[in-house]
Amino acid sequence: MIKKNPFMIRAIELSIESAKTKGGPFGSVIVKNNKIVAEGSNKVTMNNDPTAHGEIVAIRDACQKLNTFNLSGCDLYSSCEPCPMCLSAIYWSRIENVFYANTRIDAKAIDFDDSFIYSEINKDLENRKIKMYQMHRDEALEAFKIWEKKEDKIKY
Amino acid sequence: MIKKNPFMIRAIELSIESAKTKGGPFGSVIVKNNKIVAEGSNKVTMNNDPTAHGEIVAIRDACQKLNTFNLSGCDLYSSCEPCPMCLSAIYWSRIENVFYANTRIDAKAIDFDDSFIYSEINKDLENRKIKMYQMHRDEALEAFKIWEKKEDKIKY
Repeated sequence: MIKKNPFMIRAIELSIESAKTKGGPFGSVIVKNNKIVAEGSNKVTMNNDPTAHGEIVAIRDACQKLNTFNLSGCDLYSSCEPCPMCLSAIYWSRIENVFYANTRIDAKAIDFDDSFIYSEINKDLENRKIKMYQMHRDEALEAFKIWEKKEDKIKY
Repeated sequence: MIKKNPFMIRAIELSIESAKTKGGPFGSVIVKNNKIVAEGSNKVTMNNDPTAHGEIVAIRDACQKLNTFNLSGCDLYSSCEPCPMCLSAIYWSRIENVFYANTRIDAKAIDFDDSFIYSEINKDLENRKIKMYQMHRDEALEAFKIWEKKEDKIKY
């Protein structure tokens, strides 16, 4: 018998509970020192928040509970491979390891756009479906100059 | 004299205010029907939320104000090219057009990781800095099967 990973089993439980109720079919947990410190499930339509994927909900909750913006030493278990938004949030949060079950291809098969967004991000700006236009860089650099000179800035 | 875009000028103002106070040097506004409906600036360290980039703060606020998870018909003006997290959130939220000022290269020059995360997302899973491990796909597919059969699901 294959031993089951209890953290992934919990992430999957959350995804099933969410699919059966008012959420999307995705769940995540964040683990530190072999204990679950935060959980999340997809609440996009429930909360009118397109950023409320299971992983992001769990990351936000973990940061509040641990009182930090840096989740070094934490692992993420997700019922599905993270979309590019969540993967990027994982990088920004400094999570160490990611465990996932379903893939972006599985997500595509039930009409979630992960796979499409991955392909868009790989493209040059001018070839993307959403058009991006640059303007006023000279004015905007002012904020970066202020940041560079700031002595009490908190880096991340 | 070049006419200035008032929406981008406001996004830049937000980035400068934020850099001068306790935020990161980034600001965004969301515009619908030629009016600003939401504003955001980077609150990562201030709020202990690694997802609180200016764009995400503005997207979440716009969704609350407009009572929807779908920002079709809205444009985003950001003082910097969105990082992959924010770009993906823009896709998920169905924003139409993106206007930006500073680039990911400018952000890299003041030690923000956007450029690095863009390069990571392009890589195969096994070649990324953060390791990703698959497990328990069979169990996880259950949530997707429930979702497929669900009659009252809200797609997005």
